[in-house]
Amino acid sequence: MTNLTLSLTNAASSLFAALRERTGDGVGISRDSYGSGETAAVDVFSHFARGEGLHTECDAGGNLIVCADPESASRKSIVIGSHLDSVPQGGNFDGAAGIVAGLLCLIRFREERVPPPCPIKVLGLRGEESAWFGKAHIGANALFGTLSPADLLLRKRESSITLRECMAGVGADVDGIAASRPLLDPSSVASYLELHIEQGAVMVSRGFATAVVPAIRGNVRHNRIRCVGEAAHSGATPRWLRRDAVFAVADLLMRLDEHWRVLLERGLDLVVTAGIISTHPDEHAVSRVPGEATFSLEIRSQSQDTLEAFHRLIQTECRVVEDARKVKFLFDRRIDSAPARMNERIVATLLECSRWLGLPAELVPSGPGHDASLFANNGIPSGMLFVRNDGGSHNPRESMALEDFMAGVELLFHACKEPRWLF
Amino acid sequence: MTNLTLSLTNAASSLFAALRERTGDGVGISRDSYGSGETAAVDVFSHFARGEGLHTECDAGGNLIVCADPESASRKSIVIGSHLDSVPQGGNFDGAAGIVAGLLCLIRFREERVPPPCPIKVLGLRGEESAWFGKAHIGANALFGTLSPADLLLRKRESSITLRECMAGVGADVDGIAASRPLLDPSSVASYLELHIEQGAVMVSRGFATAVVPAIRGNVRHNRIRCVGEAAHSGATPRWLRRDAVFAVADLLMRLDEHWRVLLERGLDLVVTAGIISTHPDEHAVSRVPGEATFSLEIRSQSQDTLEAFHRLIQTECRVVEDARKVKFLFDRRIDSAPARMNERIVATLLECSRWLGLPAELVPSGPGHDASLFANNGIPSGMLFVRNDGGSHNPRESMALEDFMAGVELLFHACKEPRWLF
Repeated sequence: MTNLTLSLTNAASSLFAALRERTGDGVGISRDSYGSGETAAVDVFSHFARGEGLHTECDAGGNLIVCADPESASRKSIVIGSHLDSVPQGGNFDGAAGIVAGLLCLIRFREERVPPPCPIKVLGLRGEESAWFGKAHIGANALFGTLSPADLLLRKRESSITLRECMAGVGADVDGIAASRPLLDPSSVASYLELHIEQGAVMVSRGFATAVVPAIRGNVRHNRIRCVGEAAHSGATPRWLRRDAVFAVADLLMRLDEHWRVLLERGLDLVVTAGIISTHPDEHAVSRVPGEATFSLEIRSQSQDTLEAFHRLIQTECRVVEDARKVKFLFDRRIDSAPARMNERIVATLLECSRWLGLPAELVPSGPGHDASLFANNGIPSGMLFVRNDGGSHNPRESMALEDFMAGVELLFHACKEPRWLF
Repeated sequence: MTNLTLSLTNAASSLFAALRERTGDGVGISRDSYGSGETAAVDVFSHFARGEGLHTECDAGGNLIVCADPESASRKSIVIGSHLDSVPQGGNFDGAAGIVAGLLCLIRFREERVPPPCPIKVLGLRGEESAWFGKAHIGANALFGTLSPADLLLRKRESSITLRECMAGVGADVDGIAASRPLLDPSSVASYLELHIEQGAVMVSRGFATAVVPAIRGNVRHNRIRCVGEAAHSGATPRWLRRDAVFAVADLLMRLDEHWRVLLERGLDLVVTAGIISTHPDEHAVSRVPGEATFSLEIRSQSQDTLEAFHRLIQTECRVVEDARKVKFLFDRRIDSAPARMNERIVATLLECSRWLGLPAELVPSGPGHDASLFANNGIPSGMLFVRNDGGSHNPRESMALEDFMAGVELLFHACKEPRWLF
């Protein structure tokens, strides 16, 4: 290990320790969006950056910007960003890892006296987690002028304080934000890069320390679908007279499961989830043919076409089950979140750098949303890389090895040296 | 219509009206087991019987006995019985119809001066519905000495009064009952006959005014089976890493549904019901792969062999789903209720009388339990007939046409004239 690698590793270790100390809640980590926990993270990063002689400032959305000097703050840049906040009782690396990675890259460019192809800005974004205000990517939305006045009236979890008040409290320009005034000119960003822990178990299962994200899955959700049949005495109602809501939902789910299996084998990207299912507690009886069952349905894919096609397939299968089992499926509002494709050249560069560094040149799509999807969907060439993480995400058992993280930083640094993305 | 038929129809109509007036609760009918509602029904029937010059008495279990004269009370008899009580906010005909039918038969034998092959006793049984004390067939169990001391400590619905106190309140010999002393010598009953409304929709759907019951289905229940997988982020967990409890339960139910379909086609009697299903409310999330789901499972059949075979099939399919979907099924205690076959000669006689009377000679098994199952399983030749009923059972929408009821009474009367059951 070179002296520089050792000192960067130590810096990462100290930063994560400082964050854990400042934002630990006794159970896990709590950095509340536009609140004191998130601001504590801003303080930790700013203090470190200034100690390294870097320039720090906050934008009009309260997001933290770190760069080599004031002059580069105004130039077209590669932005390395991730989020400052965490879910309540969450983990230490979710979000913070990407900011630490950006800071280490900035220092390494300076220490190795290798000028990057354009200035690098590290961006610590506020309010990415939906857990606090029921809305995700608040800081990134502020950047692009896409927060609505209604969003600013959202109230913080377990309190009555509004997002507007919380944003004003950290010095954000709430009037400009309410007027949908963008804080960032997309053309000033050469590319957006984000390192993040993986929030699933694919990389642990397959033994990847790092992986390249080809796309962030979008989703289509129905929070509450009712299947309505007819309640009846189980003993007195033979099969041919039943309108059994539970068997109907089970039938639908198994039909969707089979389509899902086949579509995966055809190479499509898809996940299908019924996270909630319930018969009505007032009607619960072991010896009653259930007259109603409610369930949620969520489909996710990197492809909007796949989402649309599968959503149509759900409707078709509902009609088949309705006919066969004499029930009705009543859908609530469809809620959409668009997929975001990462820039193809950036993906190719990250894969090439991975090969060169002896890291896995593997693609792992992101299930959860990330700020990178907003940058990508606002026309900014974007890329993401994942670092292996055991124990899942949004809980204190989240676990990233420092060695894996430093491999991710190495990949990020070498990719930043690559001028091909600037077109 | 003969004068006798007319006067019997009027008597039935008046009895049902009197019962409705005395035991209506504003919503439906409430005749609480071993309580004032049930005793009001005893009063209505006793008053009517005495007005007809019939003999009435109560047995040591509080059940009502009506017969032609005191002398026949001590002789071997055909017992025509059903239950006096109802569920809370239930219907007027459930139980009462069988007692009214018995009384009309007694009167008709007297009026037509046709001596029955042996004396006829009408038995109004108390405490058949489990809704009040959580135990069914209390009066019939008292007859056979099969109430346990623990049963007598059961507390009445929404109160703290015990069954023992309630039984003592209607004059039952609670010490004898607690000592498991039978109140009835099974050899004193030539046969037990029960007319009851159908509690399902088979007869309405198929257009049968009356039907003959070949057997009362037994059942095997599991009130709460847990399916344990692993919770995970829905977006970040691909299909091959999932341990999805909801898809596993749906898979199991659809496997059982397919076996059920095939077994019905092979001519077996079976119903399969999952009346309750739920993911855990604390864990509910649209975007979470559900880590646990609980559900109930009930199977019913006229055949104990079918119940045993299907219960083994459930275990086998659980193992298959566990292997395929990486979950575990954890079963609670198995609860059994044995099927009861009606006496073959009585079933044949009822079918023959039906043909002779131009009524449907059709078999409709009973799903719900009836007091007849206790008589049958205590070695007494027993038979049941159903009268068509619309609107289901255990609710105020229960609806039996008087014409259908009188057809059932006609069938019961002619069957009682038939000496072949006395062997």
